Amino acid sequence: MAQKLKRYEQLAEQIADMIRAGVLAANERVPSVRQASERYGVSPATVFRAYYLLEDRGLIQARERSGYYVRPQGRPRLAKAHPPVASGAATEVAVSELVFSVLGSLRDPATVPFGSAFPAPGLFPLGRLGRSMGRAVQRLSPHGIIADMTAGNPELARHIVQRYRVSGVEPAADELVITNGAMEALNLCLQAVTQPGDLVAIESPAFYASLQVLERLKLRAVEIPVRPRGGIDVASLEATLDRLPIKACWIMSNFQNPLGASLDDADKARLCTLLANRQVPLIEDDVYAELYFGTVAPRPVKSFDQAGWVMHCGSFSKSLAPGYRVGWTAAGRFAGAISRLKLMTTISPSVPAQAAIADYLQYGGYDRHLRKLRHCLEDQQRAMLAAAARYFPATTRVSQPQGGYFLWFEFPRQVDALRLFRQAAALGISLAPGPIFSATQGFSHCVRLNHGHPWDARSEAAMENLGRLLEEQLEPSMAPTLGAVT
Amino acid sequence: MAQKLKRYEQLAEQIADMIRAGVLAANERVPSVRQASERYGVSPATVFRAYYLLEDRGLIQARERSGYYVRPQGRPRLAKAHPPVASGAATEVAVSELVFSVLGSLRDPATVPFGSAFPAPGLFPLGRLGRSMGRAVQRLSPHGIIADMTAGNPELARHIVQRYRVSGVEPAADELVITNGAMEALNLCLQAVTQPGDLVAIESPAFYASLQVLERLKLRAVEIPVRPRGGIDVASLEATLDRLPIKACWIMSNFQNPLGASLDDADKARLCTLLANRQVPLIEDDVYAELYFGTVAPRPVKSFDQAGWVMHCGSFSKSLAPGYRVGWTAAGRFAGAISRLKLMTTISPSVPAQAAIADYLQYGGYDRHLRKLRHCLEDQQRAMLAAAARYFPATTRVSQPQGGYFLWFEFPRQVDALRLFRQAAALGISLAPGPIFSATQGFSHCVRLNHGHPWDARSEAAMENLGRLLEEQLEPSMAPTLGAVT
Repeated sequence: MAQKLKRYEQLAEQIADMIRAGVLAANERVPSVRQASERYGVSPATVFRAYYLLEDRGLIQARERSGYYVRPQGRPRLAKAHPPVASGAATEVAVSELVFSVLGSLRDPATVPFGSAFPAPGLFPLGRLGRSMGRAVQRLSPHGIIADMTAGNPELARHIVQRYRVSGVEPAADELVITNGAMEALNLCLQAVTQPGDLVAIESPAFYASLQVLERLKLRAVEIPVRPRGGIDVASLEATLDRLPIKACWIMSNFQNPLGASLDDADKARLCTLLANRQVPLIEDDVYAELYFGTVAPRPVKSFDQAGWVMHCGSFSKSLAPGYRVGWTAAGRFAGAISRLKLMTTISPSVPAQAAIADYLQYGGYDRHLRKLRHCLEDQQRAMLAAAARYFPATTRVSQPQGGYFLWFEFPRQVDALRLFRQAAALGISLAPGPIFSATQGFSHCVRLNHGHPWDARSEAAMENLGRLLEEQLEPSMAPTLGAVT
Repeated sequence: MAQKLKRYEQLAEQIADMIRAGVLAANERVPSVRQASERYGVSPATVFRAYYLLEDRGLIQARERSGYYVRPQGRPRLAKAHPPVASGAATEVAVSELVFSVLGSLRDPATVPFGSAFPAPGLFPLGRLGRSMGRAVQRLSPHGIIADMTAGNPELARHIVQRYRVSGVEPAADELVITNGAMEALNLCLQAVTQPGDLVAIESPAFYASLQVLERLKLRAVEIPVRPRGGIDVASLEATLDRLPIKACWIMSNFQNPLGASLDDADKARLCTLLANRQVPLIEDDVYAELYFGTVAPRPVKSFDQAGWVMHCGSFSKSLAPGYRVGWTAAGRFAGAISRLKLMTTISPSVPAQAAIADYLQYGGYDRHLRKLRHCLEDQQRAMLAAAARYFPATTRVSQPQGGYFLWFEFPRQVDALRLFRQAAALGISLAPGPIFSATQGFSHCVRLNHGHPWDARSEAAMENLGRLLEEQLEPSMAPTLGAVT
């Protein structure tokens, strides 16, 4: 499925990977054009093009008469581990009011959307997708409309299955349920395996919507700490499973929202075995899977699943078609139950939206779009990190996700993220305060910022303003007057 | 909003109304052209055109040298009242398996779709709607996509509110929530006002999806009998409300599924007052509202609602855009809660689907399409009734809905509708057996047949085959061999 990268693009990616991994350190000289040409067996022209691309993306910089060097990224660093959240208590969830006040702050298009859950729709191929929609609706047959409502669009299902195969998953023919976005998939998965009052293991911090869904379904959350680089703490989860009657586990395996953390393959395999042995279903929310910055797509936990205990949930909302509301789950042994729940809940996702995405996947150049999108998001991450280094207090810690469009900032403990949220809102800047990511409203000194929008002077000014608000919270007596800032 | 009928169409409707109401009886002579011309103050040419139209629609027939006569419709008649279902007991609901086996029987396009819940998509303006979609997707703005996801498409909302005004409802600005079809609206309404274990008053017989939703939400059904012509028995509901702690009431006020019954305005007003006085929320499922056969749209209960206790649910799925999955609720005092539940469940209906319907409502000629659709459905109802009169046992009783696309047949008590369902399925005919419309699986001698598909030789043969199966059940010894029937 994946469209082949051109040779210079491949080379650029190889070198970018080395920079990301620290093999090439900041300010280190990258191989000369002649050296690289020999080492990688490509023409000097190919090396030049690769280096120009890396320069455009801000990863290397030319120094006069001296060649190319790795550009320092100036990232503040996040400490290796968060203070683990006490996972002993099961918690009634009631985070919704707070979340809705954050979402409400985003309605005004003049607001700087650092608090948004979506990347900028302008990053998506809306025109091309629109043409796919135009073709698709002309082809809809009366019988097809009814058939697609119960079984889902068969062409779309075929494309999703093909993409799964690339990531090492071989879904059974009847394992796929196409849904109204991943949000419906996650809701249905959870309903299929729980009853009101049940305990569900979730991450801490967790995507706030998972907390809302638990609240709605009257489930109780048991929070398992997420390591900023390594994803959910599998040992801690295991200890919790030994101690409590957990009925399901809901995690984001790749580029976890809000931390951006990913499990490595060994932990994914271990998690999969752990849950299968105990027959605990796993809801794997993997909506950022396509938004990786490296050359290799991260594997889903589902790719280790032999016994059908993993319900893998994906979506086109974050990678291709925002607002179309088409997602899915490959739900293993629970697919039949989920399919029936769907018929009782919404019947079907929009049939034209499914057909349009199927047409785009066939003809639109999805892999090319994804490569471009990934580079945009990585560039924007770099810009936000650089601005944070310039404007935020030196004691700030920040996550370093290798994909997605969220950064997680941890400030000194005396910072009050909810206060920061209100102060920023007054300046026309939205952000997602830490407490909305926890059933126990922890993370009061943390915020999640979205870098999914093109970086511009307004973004830069917003970071500067946030920096001032932070300084004011840390040193109230020395606060500059903020009234004049616009 | 409604496009004006031409004069001859108005006249035809007036006369059709008199035939429906029995003012003009079967075989009675309709006024001569001269008489009608004088009585209605129109030209003879207008009368001729009106009579041709009525003749085309099978309502009147010419007799040589004698003028036009009301054509006998040959309907068997349904007794005035069903035996009321004992509404004393609250019932755990478990009807789903049966429903899914009925839905499963519809997958094969070769099946005669008498069991379907949908009208034929070929009756809808799919081409014109497709062009609206093509225009709408080209106009989608990046910011609009995100805004429409939370608030709904504002143009679509405006059109829905305008249509409400015509039916006597003045929704408040923030009262409307656009949803993934009426099915999601109904689910969310019910969730907004109940907790697991609560009692909900529903109709008997009831739309099976309402039973499934109650089952899914772990609610208990209290069944209130529906009068075949007059809709839910308001006195019986009142007695139940006095006796049991009912938390919500879910009814179809117009062309109730499966009976086709409608409440009259007096009962609508009475029901509204009754529930408001007790502060019991009403979920009004009104998805067939546009499919009336007469000249006047039926009023929703919502039009009598002063205090915001009625959640009125509608949809474009049955009248315009099957598979687009766009519905709504005007939810009175519960709109805010429902809007939030929606954000936690599916976030939003498909944004392009909303935009396409908004465009169609602006430019597509919705009222013209609806008039055509209503005539089709009425013609097809007449054809099915005529076939039933020809082939079904003389003791058959049938409902006489003035809208929608379902007929409810009540056979002698020894008929087993589930057996009939299986036997018919073996002959490639689907039907909806009575027991799927009841939490207590009553109505074992009843079936619902769908006349929402163009009537053809295959429909006629299917009715003949059903007639034979019924005769066989009634007189087993005289049964013809059915093996040869195809």
